[in-house]
Amino acid sequence: MATMKAVVLRGPHDVVVEEVPVPSEIGPDEVLLKVEKTAICGTDLHVYDGRMELEPDLRLGHEFLGTVVEVGSAVGLFSEGDRGVASCVVNCGFCHQCRRQQPGKCQGVRMYGMGLTFGGLDGGQSEYVIVPAADLSMRKVPEGTAGTDDDFLFVGDIMTTGYESVRHFGRPGDIVAIVGAGPVGMCAAMAAQALGMGKVIVIDKVASRLKEAEAFGAIGINADETNVVDAVYDLTEWRGADLVIDAVGHPSALETALKLPRFGGSLYIPGAYAEESLELPWGEMWMKSLNISGGISNFTLYMDEVINLIAAGKLSPSAVISHTLPLTEAAEAYRMFEAREATKILLDPAR
Amino acid sequence: MATMKAVVLRGPHDVVVEEVPVPSEIGPDEVLLKVEKTAICGTDLHVYDGRMELEPDLRLGHEFLGTVVEVGSAVGLFSEGDRGVASCVVNCGFCHQCRRQQPGKCQGVRMYGMGLTFGGLDGGQSEYVIVPAADLSMRKVPEGTAGTDDDFLFVGDIMTTGYESVRHFGRPGDIVAIVGAGPVGMCAAMAAQALGMGKVIVIDKVASRLKEAEAFGAIGINADETNVVDAVYDLTEWRGADLVIDAVGHPSALETALKLPRFGGSLYIPGAYAEESLELPWGEMWMKSLNISGGISNFTLYMDEVINLIAAGKLSPSAVISHTLPLTEAAEAYRMFEAREATKILLDPAR
Amino acid sequence: MATMKAVVLRGPHDVVVEEVPVPSEIGPDEVLLKVEKTAICGTDLHVYDGRMELEPDLRLGHEFLGTVVEVGSAVGLFSEGDRGVASCVVNCGFCHQCRRQQPGKCQGVRMYGMGLTFGGLDGGQSEYVIVPAADLSMRKVPEGTAGTDDDFLFVGDIMTTGYESVRHFGRPGDIVAIVGAGPVGMCAAMAAQALGMGKVIVIDKVASRLKEAEAFGAIGINADETNVVDAVYDLTEWRGADLVIDAVGHPSALETALKLPRFGGSLYIPGAYAEESLELPWGEMWMKSLNISGGISNFTLYMDEVINLIAAGKLSPSAVISHTLPLTEAAEAYRMFEAREATKILLDPAR
Amino acid sequence: MATMKAVVLRGPHDVVVEEVPVPSEIGPDEVLLKVEKTAICGTDLHVYDGRMELEPDLRLGHEFLGTVVEVGSAVGLFSEGDRGVASCVVNCGFCHQCRRQQPGKCQGVRMYGMGLTFGGLDGGQSEYVIVPAADLSMRKVPEGTAGTDDDFLFVGDIMTTGYESVRHFGRPGDIVAIVGAGPVGMCAAMAAQALGMGKVIVIDKVASRLKEAEAFGAIGINADETNVVDAVYDLTEWRGADLVIDAVGHPSALETALKLPRFGGSLYIPGAYAEESLELPWGEMWMKSLNISGGISNFTLYMDEVINLIAAGKLSPSAVISHTLPLTEAAEAYRMFEAREATKILLDPAR
Repeated sequence: MATMKAVVLRGPHDVVVEEVPVPSEIGPDEVLLKVEKTAICGTDLHVYDGRMELEPDLRLGHEFLGTVVEVGSAVGLFSEGDRGVASCVVNCGFCHQCRRQQPGKCQGVRMYGMGLTFGGLDGGQSEYVIVPAADLSMRKVPEGTAGTDDDFLFVGDIMTTGYESVRHFGRPGDIVAIVGAGPVGMCAAMAAQALGMGKVIVIDKVASRLKEAEAFGAIGINADETNVVDAVYDLTEWRGADLVIDAVGHPSALETALKLPRFGGSLYIPGAYAEESLELPWGEMWMKSLNISGGISNFTLYMDEVINLIAAGKLSPSAVISHTLPLTEAAEAYRMFEAREATKILLDPAR
Repeated sequence: MATMKAVVLRGPHDVVVEEVPVPSEIGPDEVLLKVEKTAICGTDLHVYDGRMELEPDLRLGHEFLGTVVEVGSAVGLFSEGDRGVASCVVNCGFCHQCRRQQPGKCQGVRMYGMGLTFGGLDGGQSEYVIVPAADLSMRKVPEGTAGTDDDFLFVGDIMTTGYESVRHFGRPGDIVAIVGAGPVGMCAAMAAQALGMGKVIVIDKVASRLKEAEAFGAIGINADETNVVDAVYDLTEWRGADLVIDAVGHPSALETALKLPRFGGSLYIPGAYAEESLELPWGEMWMKSLNISGGISNFTLYMDEVINLIAAGKLSPSAVISHTLPLTEAAEAYRMFEAREATKILLDPAR
Repeated sequence: MATMKAVVLRGPHDVVVEEVPVPSEIGPDEVLLKVEKTAICGTDLHVYDGRMELEPDLRLGHEFLGTVVEVGSAVGLFSEGDRGVASCVVNCGFCHQCRRQQPGKCQGVRMYGMGLTFGGLDGGQSEYVIVPAADLSMRKVPEGTAGTDDDFLFVGDIMTTGYESVRHFGRPGDIVAIVGAGPVGMCAAMAAQALGMGKVIVIDKVASRLKEAEAFGAIGINADETNVVDAVYDLTEWRGADLVIDAVGHPSALETALKLPRFGGSLYIPGAYAEESLELPWGEMWMKSLNISGGISNFTLYMDEVINLIAAGKLSPSAVISHTLPLTEAAEAYRMFEAREATKILLDPAR
Repeated sequence: MATMKAVVLRGPHDVVVEEVPVPSEIGPDEVLLKVEKTAICGTDLHVYDGRMELEPDLRLGHEFLGTVVEVGSAVGLFSEGDRGVASCVVNCGFCHQCRRQQPGKCQGVRMYGMGLTFGGLDGGQSEYVIVPAADLSMRKVPEGTAGTDDDFLFVGDIMTTGYESVRHFGRPGDIVAIVGAGPVGMCAAMAAQALGMGKVIVIDKVASRLKEAEAFGAIGINADETNVVDAVYDLTEWRGADLVIDAVGHPSALETALKLPRFGGSLYIPGAYAEESLELPWGEMWMKSLNISGGISNFTLYMDEVINLIAAGKLSPSAVISHTLPLTEAAEAYRMFEAREATKILLDPAR
């Protein structure tokens, strides 16, 4: 029986690379993908550090790109040899929410490498991975465009999350303030440029990240050095931002984010919250007539647009990559990522 | 100098009807309206009981309809003798928010009978009232239609508030759950019927109000007798409602409202909140990916649609009227309204 | 081998009911439906009279409702015994257009009973029919609602076509003028009422049809007795209609339809045109800044909404049925339909 | 009485610069603008060459930018010394269409320099011009941004026309084909880049214009050298373009434009048509299910967005300027423009 390397989380902080069987039974709507690029995501960290309590011996990873090596009998769009990038979330396509163009809110939502709660799909930090509902949840990687594999890799997760954060409420010419210059915040900032926002403001405490954001035209605000609210109001004729994006998912970020929108402005929250209860300035939020949205992204709704914009050279999410390591060094990669020694780490199964 | 009767709030719970001068100076964009119908609104109660601390000797009232008796030089749409109904909120028409079709979020928003904070406009519970920015904030009362004056009276406030509560997020065929069968909740329920919602669920504890809601096709749920969450899930194939409307504006209503939307559903909040801080199940709200909106309604954006639907007999907000009293009995009317002895009280200046 | 009755078109005007084999090979995404209700549609007539030149020995019929008697291995939403109504158009679900919520514009669009050009699907005027891509193209018939089988039958074709005609451009409170009171025009008029249009005007030359339209609240205009343009302008404060629907598909209807919209108004065209070339008042159309749309309907995008509104009693398309005949009398039914002796004919396979 | 220079059209092809009185009576909602930049537009040419038959002695010009030197009593947003750019179309703000966010379709639409039919407003190719309804129809020119006066000049006409051509139907990632690389076509191409279209194709016969379009990232197709339909299908995986823009307004352009959209695609037509009658392939247009729109642009709806994007350096319409001449040389400028010796000519009142 053929074997392959796969990143396995034995328990909190215990990552190993194991030799496991290559999947051999492909369902009719599935393909087997030979993984060529995979990355560690902030969500993996929630699993890694035990905040999300999942079963042991999980195969991690939900950001990956590769080549189709086997095709289920009912798959229509892919053939052997096609290169594809999968949505990190697999939706059913037919439930109430899917039929209303809310695939991220599918009643049977599944996610790679997140255990039985999320459908028990093995992760893609491995040499091979099964992609279920391939026609629905995977897209071809275009060839000969301005985008590279390192860009298209992020179509299935952070780039599309950042993109929807702007696309959902943003109108061309708007002033957008993004709280948090991590990978999702950076992707949101790129999307804001590509989608014709008027001003793109990025707020963080890490000077190097702000510099990166400024490199593609954003206005950086260092929360350690500046009064964020004053700075944003100063940039918006004292109205506040049309759209605020909380790309962090922490009560302190939310506290800042809630102060920044204008009267009747919007707040989009891609950053995940799990707090059972939080004190919020509800009266002020109501008076300000905020429009609030967020949650799990609607990946398959927007992947095509994101792919087209990467192909056109208008989105280049590979800019967030700080390190590329061999897949075999996954344990070290997770350690570095948790220690914030890296912004975004790629794992290369071929090295 | 001509005088007229006007309802004046001397201080908390101290309503009198005074003889005051008829306004004699009409600005170029203003009209003088002879009031024929006026009503007491739940918002008036916030001022009446002192929860909203405003200056003494306020002239109350922001729901009114009447005949134009004097026209400013720059007014284009109205002539003497025209009958009109005014938006309770007067917006400027030219600020950032007004230009983005958010008139209720105008930077210079004014409201009748709410004191200097809201622009110092005298209220309409009086024989005459000045309507500023008349071309922008007033609409003609159509003649010879299925609607009556008692219906059109509510175009400028509760009917349009209820209407936007459904119109903002609602899609035809949706299941809508409305928390609170007060005047705004009832108007929202009517709007839900007129706008083609699939099921309209109304939740309250007062059996008579639920009966009224059922009379125009809603499904009533008595929160005192039934487990509301179970009942709503039972009516929605255990998904939860597509759209939930909190037409109350009280933490207990919000607690219920937050349990009712489906995954990816919407929550619209016309009910006013002033709480400085509120504990909310933020993690669950995020996971459920709710879309939340509310605040001061965008009256002038929707008044034309509401008028057309009243004229067509598809909205009949006069159904919420429980009492009509002479304007001179305003003190008694306010007492009754606060004591919940009445659902909605009209004041008639001619009686 | 089991056999069944099926309506077969041998050639122009030559309809017979033949005994043919019951389909025995069901693909993995297909179901076999025992047909309980089926109807003749205006589009069938184009095939019947030879205007659309298709191959001989076609099995006709694309409006049908029935019970699932066999289920393909990959079908998820249906089980034996479920009752379903199919979209007359089967789309792939995955092409560029399908992914952009334009299923009626699918690159591989198929239609029952329309020959090889439309995918070679056997029609549903028969005792059994295969429904391909069942999860995508069929919906369950709800039980215990205000709707009957005779209503739900039309979800897959004329009711949804009429519905989209209003839904695409219509805004609540709008004035809608519908040219043609045939089945689609009547369904559009019902939809206009359900979707909250302000005034619904129906134009035809047959007094009895106009009477029917008036029965559910529309304003009938008899084109033989009245100047249509004057009448519509009279009903719209001399602006013209917000939305005009050409539910006929004939140059003379278009000529009328083009005169009725207001400056900046809309024209939706569900009526099919096949003219290679037509003289149009293009300069006037441009100056009027019309919004024009139409073509094959996006059935699967709107079937859920239509089902919910039928279930709620807000749409009752069975009102258009004029005759029900046994399936065995199909030849006579087609003759009557072509001769305009009937508005809409149901064929009953059980009689 | 103070006098000023103004471009006057005595009759077809007879342009002179005359000394005329500076306007001295400013209405309450008007401002007097000292013109600093003005341009000749393709629409002026229709008047110049007599195709549009207007009264003699017209003061031409509807593209201009300048400084406010006098302010009417009811104007709220402007003070003396403010710099402003006016919409070429003045709408009322209160009619049915204006209230539905269709200001270009205003029932009382006026346009500078187009004679009594369009409200009799004197044109802006002069040293001073009156701007009516200033709060509604004029915008401030921002200072200290990436945009120059030569960019902001076009906010009131060609840039916003090109912008709406994309904004109306375009979705991010779309493939857009623009027929005609004149000033409006070029502005549309810039807007397509700024609004995140995926591919921007520009079709013309003038190599130098195509080169300009390519300079900002568009794909140029020379209709004299290439089969346009093949080329567009080749760039769209043989589907056709998502959105086609006819920026010419001539039957030959329309003929090409109609062949380029995909099944279910869109056609937007900013180019003006005056043809009483035109032969169109209506059957094919219907089968293709096109969405068609166009007509007079909704300037005041989009000017703010355009200004923000110019300020952000994302739109730079000054790129279309080929010549700047003194206002006094207007006669020569019109001659050159008609002879196609210039793409876009600015007239400078100060030279």
